[in-house]
Amino acid sequence: MIIKILTLFPKMFEGFISESIIKRAIDKGVCQIEVIDMRTYSLDKHHHVDDTPCGGGAGMVLACDVVHRAILANAGSNTYKILMTPQGLPYKQAKALELAKKEEIMLICGHYEGFDERIRSFVDAEISIGDYVLTGGELASQVVCDSVIRLLDNAITKESHEDDSFSLGLLEYPQYTRPIEYEGMAVPEVLLNGNHRLINEFRKKEALRKTYLRRPDLLADYQLSKEEEKLLKEVIEEENKGL
Amino acid sequence: MIIKILTLFPKMFEGFISESIIKRAIDKGVCQIEVIDMRTYSLDKHHHVDDTPCGGGAGMVLACDVVHRAILANAGSNTYKILMTPQGLPYKQAKALELAKKEEIMLICGHYEGFDERIRSFVDAEISIGDYVLTGGELASQVVCDSVIRLLDNAITKESHEDDSFSLGLLEYPQYTRPIEYEGMAVPEVLLNGNHRLINEFRKKEALRKTYLRRPDLLADYQLSKEEEKLLKEVIEEENKGL
Repeated sequence: MIIKILTLFPKMFEGFISESIIKRAIDKGVCQIEVIDMRTYSLDKHHHVDDTPCGGGAGMVLACDVVHRAILANAGSNTYKILMTPQGLPYKQAKALELAKKEEIMLICGHYEGFDERIRSFVDAEISIGDYVLTGGELASQVVCDSVIRLLDNAITKESHEDDSFSLGLLEYPQYTRPIEYEGMAVPEVLLNGNHRLINEFRKKEALRKTYLRRPDLLADYQLSKEEEKLLKEVIEEENKGL
Repeated sequence: MIIKILTLFPKMFEGFISESIIKRAIDKGVCQIEVIDMRTYSLDKHHHVDDTPCGGGAGMVLACDVVHRAILANAGSNTYKILMTPQGLPYKQAKALELAKKEEIMLICGHYEGFDERIRSFVDAEISIGDYVLTGGELASQVVCDSVIRLLDNAITKESHEDDSFSLGLLEYPQYTRPIEYEGMAVPEVLLNGNHRLINEFRKKEALRKTYLRRPDLLADYQLSKEEEKLLKEVIEEENKGL
């Protein structure tokens, strides 16, 4: 997969590309990331990329012609072009799975103070990573890259993401490792006995409990199996007893 | 404000800290960011920080004792400690505004494959930046930093964030800058006439239109003024005519 990123702050990607999973994925040829400085597409001799807003107001607005030239020079006919903006569609794991199937995506980082509305007409999608405001699209595009790259074949082991929170529609079950006892808190006994049927049941039930307590909104969209229905009923009874 | 970040990948923060608004805010003394390598708190001679999950399964689990020692060594009594995890409370602009009032926050980056459940007992809050899975908490903590720092006094001009998407509960109105005409798309005439009453009305109405069309869920929580009520009614009529 090829990921092209259009930005005014290419240096913001240095740590991201040279560390951890992303670096390993690039080294293994799983993906290729190109960070492109939009400023080089300004025709202005001072390389200005923004201007004051029409109608007045604070701040500067990223100009549509600069962004358009940068897109035209770097996108092919099969490039899926995404504008990073708080006004976009809220990003979810389902979109990450969809993007992971594309051959080439382009992530266009908005300007922190705003960008010309006409830029929207040059892209295939607009994505918001959440209901908060960032200084620019740079972190948002790294979030999209990261969530997509880890889903690509050979980026991480398959089992590592099959149990992810959200992948199955529920939050992940609680995990434990040594020490078995720490500051008076012990690993649940069932996890130490090697009975895989009971371990599986514990994990399913605790994933349901966590989702029920923290994100009941996720349960509304989730198709419970017969076994899960029974486990969730137990969870609800146990939790209500605690009240 | 002091922000302390506990991570296993300190290099992932290099680009973030040395660029743009964040660098300027640090240089101006608006905030101070300390990136702390949790690995140095491992007592193991190979500096291991994780171990296999109790009960079996794929991947490695971040150990609670390492994280606990790192927290104890770096947090004071007034440090607000936040664990970055997909299982946390969904992060919103309101939480950014709340965090911007704190003296000192600590962001603890979870491990990409999971962390010991007992780590949750050491923190004051758990935050998720969205319903997707990342390789670690590093990008999530940068998102929180970025959204908080830009709200601090003197980080950016006040006017720049007062009109933000979400700050007022609506998406931001469309912005335009030169060229006035580009590829057959013109800046709306009202923005060019210098009539500030009409410009304000246009912006209010278009912010309402954008929110109505893209994020009607935000409108449900929004208190409309009398004027906005009238403008939204016009928007709805106009949009329904188009169907």
